[in-house]
Amino acid sequence: MYTNLDHLKFLLRDVHPISSLLKLPRFAHLDWEQCWMMVESAKALADRHMAPYFKEMDTLGVTYDGKGGVKSHPQLKTIIRQAAEGGWINGAASFEVGGMQMPLMIFNSGHHIFQAANNGCQGYFSLTSGAAALITSFGSKEQIETFVPKMFDGLWQGTMALTEPQAGSSLTDITTSAKPLGGDRYKIKGQKIFISGGQHEACDNFVHLTLARIEGAPPGTKGISLFIIPKFRPEPDGSLKYNDVFCAGDFQKMGQRGYVTTHLVFGDNDDCVGYLVGEAHKGLPYMFQMMNEARIGVGQTAASVAMAAYYASLEYAKERSQGRLASEKDPLKPPTLIIRHPDVQRMLLTQKAIAEGSISLAMECNRLYDLSHATEGEEQRNHWLLLEILTPIVKTYSSEQGSRAAALAVQTLGGYGFTMDFPVQQHYRDLKIMSIYEGTTGIQSLDLLGRKVTMEKGKALALLLAEMKKTADTARPMNGLKSYADQLSEEADRVQSVLGHLLKYAPTDVDRYLSDATVFMEQVSYVVIAWQWLKMAACAQEILSKGDLGTTPRAFYEGKIHTMKFFFRYELPHAEACAATLTDPEYLTGLSNHDLLG
Amino acid sequence: MYTNLDHLKFLLRDVHPISSLLKLPRFAHLDWEQCWMMVESAKALADRHMAPYFKEMDTLGVTYDGKGGVKSHPQLKTIIRQAAEGGWINGAASFEVGGMQMPLMIFNSGHHIFQAANNGCQGYFSLTSGAAALITSFGSKEQIETFVPKMFDGLWQGTMALTEPQAGSSLTDITTSAKPLGGDRYKIKGQKIFISGGQHEACDNFVHLTLARIEGAPPGTKGISLFIIPKFRPEPDGSLKYNDVFCAGDFQKMGQRGYVTTHLVFGDNDDCVGYLVGEAHKGLPYMFQMMNEARIGVGQTAASVAMAAYYASLEYAKERSQGRLASEKDPLKPPTLIIRHPDVQRMLLTQKAIAEGSISLAMECNRLYDLSHATEGEEQRNHWLLLEILTPIVKTYSSEQGSRAAALAVQTLGGYGFTMDFPVQQHYRDLKIMSIYEGTTGIQSLDLLGRKVTMEKGKALALLLAEMKKTADTARPMNGLKSYADQLSEEADRVQSVLGHLLKYAPTDVDRYLSDATVFMEQVSYVVIAWQWLKMAACAQEILSKGDLGTTPRAFYEGKIHTMKFFFRYELPHAEACAATLTDPEYLTGLSNHDLLG
Repeated sequence: MYTNLDHLKFLLRDVHPISSLLKLPRFAHLDWEQCWMMVESAKALADRHMAPYFKEMDTLGVTYDGKGGVKSHPQLKTIIRQAAEGGWINGAASFEVGGMQMPLMIFNSGHHIFQAANNGCQGYFSLTSGAAALITSFGSKEQIETFVPKMFDGLWQGTMALTEPQAGSSLTDITTSAKPLGGDRYKIKGQKIFISGGQHEACDNFVHLTLARIEGAPPGTKGISLFIIPKFRPEPDGSLKYNDVFCAGDFQKMGQRGYVTTHLVFGDNDDCVGYLVGEAHKGLPYMFQMMNEARIGVGQTAASVAMAAYYASLEYAKERSQGRLASEKDPLKPPTLIIRHPDVQRMLLTQKAIAEGSISLAMECNRLYDLSHATEGEEQRNHWLLLEILTPIVKTYSSEQGSRAAALAVQTLGGYGFTMDFPVQQHYRDLKIMSIYEGTTGIQSLDLLGRKVTMEKGKALALLLAEMKKTADTARPMNGLKSYADQLSEEADRVQSVLGHLLKYAPTDVDRYLSDATVFMEQVSYVVIAWQWLKMAACAQEILSKGDLGTTPRAFYEGKIHTMKFFFRYELPHAEACAATLTDPEYLTGLSNHDLLG
Repeated sequence: MYTNLDHLKFLLRDVHPISSLLKLPRFAHLDWEQCWMMVESAKALADRHMAPYFKEMDTLGVTYDGKGGVKSHPQLKTIIRQAAEGGWINGAASFEVGGMQMPLMIFNSGHHIFQAANNGCQGYFSLTSGAAALITSFGSKEQIETFVPKMFDGLWQGTMALTEPQAGSSLTDITTSAKPLGGDRYKIKGQKIFISGGQHEACDNFVHLTLARIEGAPPGTKGISLFIIPKFRPEPDGSLKYNDVFCAGDFQKMGQRGYVTTHLVFGDNDDCVGYLVGEAHKGLPYMFQMMNEARIGVGQTAASVAMAAYYASLEYAKERSQGRLASEKDPLKPPTLIIRHPDVQRMLLTQKAIAEGSISLAMECNRLYDLSHATEGEEQRNHWLLLEILTPIVKTYSSEQGSRAAALAVQTLGGYGFTMDFPVQQHYRDLKIMSIYEGTTGIQSLDLLGRKVTMEKGKALALLLAEMKKTADTARPMNGLKSYADQLSEEADRVQSVLGHLLKYAPTDVDRYLSDATVFMEQVSYVVIAWQWLKMAACAQEILSKGDLGTTPRAFYEGKIHTMKFFFRYELPHAEACAATLTDPEYLTGLSNHDLLG
């Protein structure tokens, strides 16, 4: 077991009710049963084609052949084709571009299952999906017709090519160049690194959505344009011609070892053509569409991998006998299942709180995405603002705390957890990249404190805090939930007051204002996940009160309430500790004498 | 650079002054210069023979040949022999058994260097050293003469063989059996797993210090005896005979891949002889000598690996240019070194605070070990009590927070950190085992709360808190240190009051009393490391005030004070958060309905 469909159903049906989406014109063609059938089909697909290869794709890894090719796992082709056939590349796209117009909530519920089953392989086709979405949003009709259908069929791999060796996270410093050839065609020259899915054996062509600078463009991010750069370019006669896109290597990594990470060289023989997407110099805002979705996707992947690790360790804890409770002094009594040890329960509850809390936040984001694409006016704007502020949070909390959760999964298995015989060590290794992909934790935190909390005069944050208060108000009158509702309100207020403190520095010393952005992120994340847990607990409490359990066991709902309490007692107090750091008057991370660090 | 000799010198000379040890009769044959020369010789040895193989020993790993043999790295033989020759196996042993009678502080300073350079290879000869120490402490004259000299020469590998497949951490459930053959000879039958160094190509023989149960022994840990079980047993004629010790496999692991982890089968052909050490049924207390030293050793190893990761990321941060400070709006300005980014400084300071703080605590323990072996009466007793309470703490803090520090090292390098091209990912993988070796974090925490804080009516804890107050009193009048001294006192009081709260459960519900032992461990650890940092800062402040810097740059000492402040502002507030968890009246980890976890 690598994830729990009951939890997913609870999220989709009760906590973040998809029913409200299905009333909207965009999704009117779907009902709940159809949606859930899609989710179940994803589970069947993952069980059959993905989960069985999780370990082997890691063990075999991928290897660069020294001359432009990368040997990938033979199963990969089946995985990508099956995903395409199942609607897991084109599912969220509109009918008019050949999509299935599913809510992202459903599309990403399927992807959650794939991520939990085999996160590396999911990356390939989810990248293609994101790249195709970008082309459909901003590309010309001809570009869409040329590239998107092949991508939807899983025949052509999509990628995003941003990072350059010298620039890293700093897109301002991108130097890949583009020289006009007429129309949307440009001659491209440059190098990109860390390009996931950039070369392998399972697809016929590679469509690199690439940021580059048109000759004479203004400096900085305002001079960046977006190009489609295929490995083989379609010629007027319908044939494909090698487009001078050379894979110069594959980075070997500590995790996601079955997922290629390439170094690409464009135009080394002066024959690489890129097709400008949309207008010149607007590449960054375009790319941010894909990037924002990718950030939610990475957060969700981290949560999904943490979920898989949780279930692996839970199963082990239910089967493994070892030791006795402290109260049992008789060594002749048989050993107990380790799940009875309070410390093991603590490790399992911590994992459950992190993994299920993160997945709930991801679903909140998916739902906001759907709402902000299917509503209008003020309502649309508010959904979008909430999504904007939650995006860096779901990305960061899930990846940072997901790693911690996977460490606890390893720990639950003890020495066995460290061996290659069990999957938890792979989850732990895979997870580490999630806090780096699509903008590191540092970058996400700058985005949160430097952009999102101040945008539109703080409206996004105000909306978020109001949502929290709303949840607290719903929960407060419920049986046993009052103190948690009060605690959430108090922590929401504390976020506001810490921000007030930090903002004093913003006008005169922006470096100092942002210096502890990551600690602020940590504080806010704890509070946001507490909000998700109170939401889940209030839903569960309502179902329990109504006695409306259907076939779901009572323990399922009681477990949500229990885990909420656990989160509030074991995790949430650390939000206040972060606040203590943030409101301290000393400024310790603006050192100019770096020898103090030596 | 993988560690910093200046920091080590500061610890040995100023913070935990070795001068007080060198006055004791046991160490009267040594002066500071000789001690420091030993440390420098360790550095030269590590530079030449260990550090260059850190990556390769991981890449090549170790492989089981299917018939009892394990292929290890060809350099291993040189490493072990050189370590032996340098005095790094016998160094801490007494003259009378062929040792060099160095303080453990110096012996472990050398080992710190080896651990930072190549932690896997250090394991081999440090195990031999510990095993030999156990034989010299409790073995017969004949046993000592038979085994110890070969071990000191690095020709025979020592191991500790405790864990059995069905028992894991629960030594009560050990089933390996021993049948008397006369004298100290017993016929052994059983299996042990996770035996580090249990079989490889660099030694001629293997000396397994093994826990087993003599037929008819009382149940539980009171019926466990300690045996020497060599792979080849010395015959009366001086020859060696295969002793029916079969290596049935090597566990493949996510880290420490160059360090063998074997599965051993004793007596499958009914011809395995073990030699009883000391008295029957006293195996566990004997083994605890080695185990306690090994726990300090694992803590110190974790700290050392975290130190190596810190230096790898610090060097990178000083060389890598990327992005601009938030206050720099001009994209035409050249990118800045990443060490100038506050978030990178935060990551580096966190690592420095954890790694140097842990090494300081390890040196505190090493010094207490020396004092408790070289003093007498009440004084000896107090040193021993302090060591007893600090042992689980240094083991746990260094391994848990060391992993977090190494994650920050990876993060500092961004995507590069996740690739096999840089060492930080190896540090991260290697470190994960440290919270499992020699008793998991859960076991250490039970030891702290269940035994160490209550032993001798709480005297160990009282001594520890008194030491903290003493440090606070020293620091309080110093320039700028008052608020930190007060904060440490306050946190020491909070430990006492949390314990008072927990102890209410001890008489009637011991399971509940111990249920959050790990959270208590976390709280206490933060306070203990704060104490180490205040000690270091007070030392540094005193040296700065006196102007007695010698050739050490001023920034070195200022950096200690700065890092202390950082620890108090960024880390220590989490001690209070742990206290909030611990004093909450709800009991959430004593679930009997495990379906709530599903």
